[in-house]
Amino acid sequence: MSVVPADDRGLLLGDGLFETLLAEGGRLVDLEAHLARMIRGCAVLGLEPPAAAAAGALAREALAAAGLTQGRAAVRITLTAGSGRGLDRPDRATRLLAGASPAPAPSGPARLAIVGIRRNPSSPSSRLKTLSYLDNVLARREARGQGAEEALMLNTEGQLACAAAANLFWITEGRLFTPALDCGVLDGIVRGQTIEKARALGVEIADVAAGPGALETAEALFLTSSLAGILPVASLDGRGFGPHALVDRLSRSGR
Amino acid sequence: MSVVPADDRGLLLGDGLFETLLAEGGRLVDLEAHLARMIRGCAVLGLEPPAAAAAGALAREALAAAGLTQGRAAVRITLTAGSGRGLDRPDRATRLLAGASPAPAPSGPARLAIVGIRRNPSSPSSRLKTLSYLDNVLARREARGQGAEEALMLNTEGQLACAAAANLFWITEGRLFTPALDCGVLDGIVRGQTIEKARALGVEIADVAAGPGALETAEALFLTSSLAGILPVASLDGRGFGPHALVDRLSRSGR
Repeated sequence: MSVVPADDRGLLLGDGLFETLLAEGGRLVDLEAHLARMIRGCAVLGLEPPAAAAAGALAREALAAAGLTQGRAAVRITLTAGSGRGLDRPDRATRLLAGASPAPAPSGPARLAIVGIRRNPSSPSSRLKTLSYLDNVLARREARGQGAEEALMLNTEGQLACAAAANLFWITEGRLFTPALDCGVLDGIVRGQTIEKARALGVEIADVAAGPGALETAEALFLTSSLAGILPVASLDGRGFGPHALVDRLSRSGR
Repeated sequence: MSVVPADDRGLLLGDGLFETLLAEGGRLVDLEAHLARMIRGCAVLGLEPPAAAAAGALAREALAAAGLTQGRAAVRITLTAGSGRGLDRPDRATRLLAGASPAPAPSGPARLAIVGIRRNPSSPSSRLKTLSYLDNVLARREARGQGAEEALMLNTEGQLACAAAANLFWITEGRLFTPALDCGVLDGIVRGQTIEKARALGVEIADVAAGPGALETAEALFLTSSLAGILPVASLDGRGFGPHALVDRLSRSGR
């Protein structure tokens, strides 16, 4: 078991970033896009960015060490702000870790519940996968307490943002919508790919600032994430949604 | 050097709590109050609370192991949500750590700057010392970039909240004010003691929801924290403050 020193700033203060990648048969899906996002995040947080080649090699080593080069696995790359106590970082030295674990395919459409914890667009953390992810843990916990599998989070302005570990899309009158990034939304890799796919298929797509009322007339909702790809939503706060041709079409068109 | 497994949820997700205590000549100042706050935080986050006696013993061991039983030291107690990947906690097992480091007395009054990152009162994290402390790191960094030593954070409603690692008080026409806890403010131990001291001294004190405009007519500002006690503010965004009799009186009246 890999260990980190107890004075690591990721542990002490959530000072760092992570990426979770899908591995399929030993292939790291969208590795370059994940590393590019981590490097963009470093610029925002003022951290020394990792060398992409070294991070990729570490991820592949973790996958092999876990014996997960067949089937589906999740590879997590973690970058911490290195060692040092107190809010002021002693230097720019960072620490890079990777681990792999089995990642079964999602068992089916997700039941969503809108939770009370909101995302804070005034913080860059709301748009990054940071090691300060407790609000997401608490949002998921709140959703589970309501009998759902995933949380739908609004932002502090009351606008739709994203799920605890996925981006949100909805379909109204055949048009596709997703919350705009400046609503405090993670810049999801599958989110970006889904927008591109929709455009390629000639489907109208808009990224919007909208309240939860916008979902009242929605025909379908779905989530996107690196591990689940496109995941249909079965229900939101108990209101059910059936299958939808456009969701199927986007799912089938590959990554 | 103490280590933690790389699958610790404190490291991976900022899932946990901490306390920072002042030690003076080997004595852990306000140990019971710190442990009581950590245990209250566990109830909010759904974590198994640590046994206070065990946590106190661990803190004393850390102090002795670091050879810091003379003079001033900072003792940090960290409670993580144990091991486990993913937002859903696998169980309620936690991990308790402690470390000690030298804590020189503050060098003098602090220069403050109001920063752009705001506190999010919709999240319980805004009122707890959680391992998801990146916003505080970024707030401090932003303040340093403005030539100040500490950040003054507003909340998402634009109300005064607290500093990155301290609570805020101000004095206007001889009356003492501090932001109310539901503004997204840590329930600071020295904050609570200062309110009690003011009352004992017959000084009017109010905890309020107020915008930064309330500071325009303030005669003095000060910060409170476990490591610094009562720390006068030298300036806010370049506007200077001199010494103030009431701040001196509160500082002198001990803890």
